[in-house]
Amino acid sequence: MLTLLFAGAARDWPDYEPALTRALSEVGLAARLALPAAIAPEAVDYIIYAPSGPVTDFAPFTRARAVLSLWAGVERVVGNPSLTQALCRMVDEGLARGMVEWVTGQVLRAHLGLDRYAAPQAPVWEPVVPPLAPERAVVVLGLGVLGAACAGMLARLGFAVTGWSRTPKDIPGIDCLSGPEGLRTALARAEILVTILPNTPETENLLNAETLALLPQGAVILNPGRGTLIDDAALLAALDAGRVGQATLDVFRTEPLPADHPYWAHPRVTVTPHIAAATRPLSAARVIAENIRRSEAGEPLLHLVDRARGY
Amino acid sequence: MLTLLFAGAARDWPDYEPALTRALSEVGLAARLALPAAIAPEAVDYIIYAPSGPVTDFAPFTRARAVLSLWAGVERVVGNPSLTQALCRMVDEGLARGMVEWVTGQVLRAHLGLDRYAAPQAPVWEPVVPPLAPERAVVVLGLGVLGAACAGMLARLGFAVTGWSRTPKDIPGIDCLSGPEGLRTALARAEILVTILPNTPETENLLNAETLALLPQGAVILNPGRGTLIDDAALLAALDAGRVGQATLDVFRTEPLPADHPYWAHPRVTVTPHIAAATRPLSAARVIAENIRRSEAGEPLLHLVDRARGY
Repeated sequence: MLTLLFAGAARDWPDYEPALTRALSEVGLAARLALPAAIAPEAVDYIIYAPSGPVTDFAPFTRARAVLSLWAGVERVVGNPSLTQALCRMVDEGLARGMVEWVTGQVLRAHLGLDRYAAPQAPVWEPVVPPLAPERAVVVLGLGVLGAACAGMLARLGFAVTGWSRTPKDIPGIDCLSGPEGLRTALARAEILVTILPNTPETENLLNAETLALLPQGAVILNPGRGTLIDDAALLAALDAGRVGQATLDVFRTEPLPADHPYWAHPRVTVTPHIAAATRPLSAARVIAENIRRSEAGEPLLHLVDRARGY
Repeated sequence: MLTLLFAGAARDWPDYEPALTRALSEVGLAARLALPAAIAPEAVDYIIYAPSGPVTDFAPFTRARAVLSLWAGVERVVGNPSLTQALCRMVDEGLARGMVEWVTGQVLRAHLGLDRYAAPQAPVWEPVVPPLAPERAVVVLGLGVLGAACAGMLARLGFAVTGWSRTPKDIPGIDCLSGPEGLRTALARAEILVTILPNTPETENLLNAETLALLPQGAVILNPGRGTLIDDAALLAALDAGRVGQATLDVFRTEPLPADHPYWAHPRVTVTPHIAAATRPLSAARVIAENIRRSEAGEPLLHLVDRARGY
């Protein structure tokens, strides 16, 4: 009988308790699953973790074989010096699917100019036919599991998709660029720019005054990645100047985004409240259960975090 | 040397003249292309036609082998008693592509609830995570070239897609229904309903008080098909009652939609000005040129209209 600690947000326990119980049973594991108050740290075999949960010190969990993150982003835990156990990111099929839906919907909103028809409508019949997708350059920064899934769906819709990643990648149907020079090339063609990079020292403020100046006039920025990718002051200046035409942002340095933040009221900014990539309990629980099964069977863990890279 | 009459809207001639010249040259045809004032009717070999153009009487075109429509819908010409020539619909790759983009964008707008984030935004952080696409029932009425293309893309995005057509069809990934009983089943499951049917006596007022009452509470209706598919008074009543949650309409019985039409000001209605399926000159010209080549080579015409069916 394994002992599993649920160290996610307490408010998520009612959703995760049945989902994890079902997923563990599906892979044939017998386990006791509990909240921190009910388990001694030294008895815990696996820690199911979220930064919004109660655990900040991993040292007491002397027996734990792995920390299994419920979040895709691990930047708030990867540098924790008390964390000596294996750390796995969440790669949830539901999360990737949600991200693809959010990105595809937001790209089509920008591409088709849907905001032009927002209520209240003036009774003016002015047909403006948008270009077709092959004539629209969309650039996706970040070609990990989520970025590649989004780029692939946009290419299937017919968009001219450029992808950029730090190290070279090769994805059919996507013009893949990499490295610092590739980034400049990618930004220069981005009518619609989608940022799906992890938060690392290298990606902090990737969009700043200098890089924003490389975008075509009136470019649209969609950020479902990380709030830290964007120098907020530089983006606001580029929006005010009209260099950037519109920004739809799902993630922020401080969440919830404070009510007095200029993004809320800016006419060229749409705020969505960190909904692009929400982990879904049932599919996430299956990922966790599969990793525990693998660990117990001596198989390699899925989505193991590389501490040096930070993700 | 063939003589081709351009009987589309005069305002489209500057776009079509070079597009047709190029497309005819690509298929190796030598042709003289002109507006009605420059050609005697009895000298015309082929009529390139749109209802917005000047020709209403086809009898004087005694030598014409075919009438090649620039429009996908032929309801304004198919019953013309003077039309004895072969009539071909436009099936333009650009038109199908534009329709897929409009429909996919509008379905995602409804699915993701994008209007919730429309400007001006109140500074309120209220995460509402939409269901994933497999949990969203989308129904496409009409499985012709355009409807099938839209249904296919929605299925690739993961939506639970039901298609309905008058006669049975079989499309992989789509739950295909047909006939009157199939229509009732389809409507009853349509959280999002897309109507892409031709305008025929059978489809007139297909959405009326009785059929609208079959939809789930709060269903969203997207009509990029024909204005005649909808009984406007019945739809307005269903919107006022909240039975239909939202309607986004691209086509109307009278276009431009009159400024005093209640659709413009209705809070649950979005009007787009007949832009979902715009014929693109270059790809449309290639369809026309290919049909003239086929006719001259004695091969069967593409997209020949069945006068009995009306499309």
